[in-house]
Amino acid sequence: MNDLKIKQLFDYDSWTYTYLLWDEGTKNSIIIDPVFEQSDRDLSVIKKLGLNLLYIFETHVHADHITGASNLKEKTRAKICYGSKTGVDGADIFFEDGYKLNLDNHEIFVIHTPGHTSGCVCYYVKGYIFTGDTLFIEGTGRTDFQEGSSNDIYDSVKNKIFKYPDETIVYPCHNYKGFLSSTIGYEKKFNPNVGNNISKKEFLENERKKNRPYPKKFDTAVPANLKCGKT
Amino acid sequence: MNDLKIKQLFDYDSWTYTYLLWDEGTKNSIIIDPVFEQSDRDLSVIKKLGLNLLYIFETHVHADHITGASNLKEKTRAKICYGSKTGVDGADIFFEDGYKLNLDNHEIFVIHTPGHTSGCVCYYVKGYIFTGDTLFIEGTGRTDFQEGSSNDIYDSVKNKIFKYPDETIVYPCHNYKGFLSSTIGYEKKFNPNVGNNISKKEFLENERKKNRPYPKKFDTAVPANLKCGKT
Repeated sequence: MNDLKIKQLFDYDSWTYTYLLWDEGTKNSIIIDPVFEQSDRDLSVIKKLGLNLLYIFETHVHADHITGASNLKEKTRAKICYGSKTGVDGADIFFEDGYKLNLDNHEIFVIHTPGHTSGCVCYYVKGYIFTGDTLFIEGTGRTDFQEGSSNDIYDSVKNKIFKYPDETIVYPCHNYKGFLSSTIGYEKKFNPNVGNNISKKEFLENERKKNRPYPKKFDTAVPANLKCGKT
Repeated sequence: MNDLKIKQLFDYDSWTYTYLLWDEGTKNSIIIDPVFEQSDRDLSVIKKLGLNLLYIFETHVHADHITGASNLKEKTRAKICYGSKTGVDGADIFFEDGYKLNLDNHEIFVIHTPGHTSGCVCYYVKGYIFTGDTLFIEGTGRTDFQEGSSNDIYDSVKNKIFKYPDETIVYPCHNYKGFLSSTIGYEKKFNPNVGNNISKKEFLENERKKNRPYPKKFDTAVPANLKCGKT
């Protein structure tokens, strides 16, 4: 079996992390949560690394940036993949909870983690979990729009994400403090929202009290992302 | 021997990467190129991870941000380390070219790489090279101030950095396109400034033609960094 390589990329405008995964032997690859404005950069690095982009994975319908999915599909013919509860128009594959997909010999598991949005999914591949806007580094995604649910996100993190080993690397969709990754063990211990010492009652109460600004790109990003980033 | 762990951190204002290295068994650690404004964040993560900060490594006297070295030393008693040609006031250890320092069983090599500044150093630890402002991802550091030398930076990259294996991970001090790391093999192939297809004559000519703006923090950062970030 060849090595699985992971390359983290960053969009400075929306503070989004994009991930490129590939098998070092076959060069078959997947991109997770690409950003529209970074399509040329992403295509350039895919070409330079000699990768064969097979899939574009989305963790959810983003409200803060437009996805680069359609741009990348157009130039590569990769399949656009979303969680089955997202209802986006134009996706090629809808993942059900528990779906397993192989990138060569690397098993990737789809985990339905509703809460930030009803259709959120996370992706697990041995030793790594891509948590989208469900679990952040010392944080959790907002639950006040797009069928968000504080009850659901708490259950998703506690029952579906925190069940992975403590040493699992956590790769989120955003961070605003300059952290690039975390681990399950660290988040269980130090996440102020959903760490081990926070009960569901406390979490729900804390979420209820939050008064967050309207996301500035919401009105353009969500409609575009419901069409896989076609603008 | 225990695992060497590496945590990359980012400062959004100066686009600087800081690196935290530690031995997973002993928790002895080193920080490379900390940023003044991020001292509280860095101290917080050091504390949460249970690390014992032994050394603060600087790659050079920075012109675009003030180092957090003195802040971190004050709270941890770690030793501040610079290349011997920097002439900073208040450093505890000055590294000569080729100096080898052990973090438990991990051998770290100091490589004097003049060019961006006359006192620049890079650090190599098995499989990873921290290249400061000498080698960037698809770029090289400026050579038009602080005793910069186009001739020297070309030789430093070609003779001292590119001698490491192609698969070596390159961790620079900055990137402005959302790339977090590279490899020696990638840079040899694709670095538009100093890749394999660029002769010294071409490099010198290209550098000579560049007309770059005066670094906005130069007049505050350099004097402060010549005193290890004491402001």
